[in-house]
Amino acid sequence: MRHLILSAVLALGLTVGHSGLSISAAQAQGVNQAKFNSDGKVNIPTDWRQWVFVGTPLTPNALNGGKAAFPEFHNVYIEPSAYKHWKKTGKFAEGTQIAKELVLIRKKDKEEMNKDGSTGEVSGVGYFQGEFTGLELTVKDNKRFAKDPGGWAYFSFGHKLPYAKTAKAFPAKSCNACHQSAAADDFVFTQFYPVLRAAKPK
Amino acid sequence: MRHLILSAVLALGLTVGHSGLSISAAQAQGVNQAKFNSDGKVNIPTDWRQWVFVGTPLTPNALNGGKAAFPEFHNVYIEPSAYKHWKKTGKFAEGTQIAKELVLIRKKDKEEMNKDGSTGEVSGVGYFQGEFTGLELTVKDNKRFAKDPGGWAYFSFGHKLPYAKTAKAFPAKSCNACHQSAAADDFVFTQFYPVLRAAKPK
Repeated sequence: MRHLILSAVLALGLTVGHSGLSISAAQAQGVNQAKFNSDGKVNIPTDWRQWVFVGTPLTPNALNGGKAAFPEFHNVYIEPSAYKHWKKTGKFAEGTQIAKELVLIRKKDKEEMNKDGSTGEVSGVGYFQGEFTGLELTVKDNKRFAKDPGGWAYFSFGHKLPYAKTAKAFPAKSCNACHQSAAADDFVFTQFYPVLRAAKPK
Repeated sequence: MRHLILSAVLALGLTVGHSGLSISAAQAQGVNQAKFNSDGKVNIPTDWRQWVFVGTPLTPNALNGGKAAFPEFHNVYIEPSAYKHWKKTGKFAEGTQIAKELVLIRKKDKEEMNKDGSTGEVSGVGYFQGEFTGLELTVKDNKRFAKDPGGWAYFSFGHKLPYAKTAKAFPAKSCNACHQSAAADDFVFTQFYPVLRAAKPK
């Protein structure tokens, strides 16, 4: 019996099914799992705003022909147990969840808005976060998303509040192409996320 | 004895010292406290990047005469137990800690930088987070900082990494003036922090 358990432990890294034992690699790595429904849709996370924030890219509509692909601030978070694994290993564990919440630039009266979308505040001229406008999620799960490069699937809970309660994965090509070609670490744009870079083991 | 405890509980809201019982309002509100040394300096928090992120203002150097007052992204976090209190009451508890980490815009080669400091990436033209460049903290403590308006004192752990391990409070005037005149909620710029606005009870 002891030998059986040892074998199972040693075999981890891929999914292990062993004499009735069914333990996924993700569970084995102690990473909290996204909740999927029987139709394959994922449930919206309950508490992404309390996940670990990693960075905020900003692509103003005004600098992108009036309509950025992802308007405008992108507040990006990693689920805390996946962050812990990243900090320990420098790898994104099976089950890793990363959320991106979109936030519009804070508007002022027309005459107070600069052409580039910036405004003046007491701290200087720049960009300030207005209202939430969308929530997206990526999940790494090589078992569930065996056909997606890197095992990463991408979801959107829509661009209106309240967000949708569930979301279907995008076709592999729609998001993965950019993430595969331009992201610094395993499909994740760590080059834009100083918190992840700082936490990565040397 | 039961009566004594009840009196102490009822008197909370201000600091209570009662028959040898010394319990601060902050502790009573269940809010984690910043650590101060005997010389009055505050210790750098150990884990501010795992606090609750509330928003990121951006004041690019290029839009502020080459040198913004706070260069350039400002990643702002609230300590989790203070966030919990805010979510419940819409007030900043005694002991609330809010950290602001400054991050420079990610640079590219000169010919790839736009005049406004923005760059082009696969997600569009905009601003992306480069390297950390400073850490500041504010603490609300009407007992310790009785002379500071609202009880808020402000600290800087410097603008070079590694940050200083301790920091002395700024003179009341240097930060408080702007926070007092322009911040939407009790000296805090919640107008720029969608996470705090969304969590505030209606």
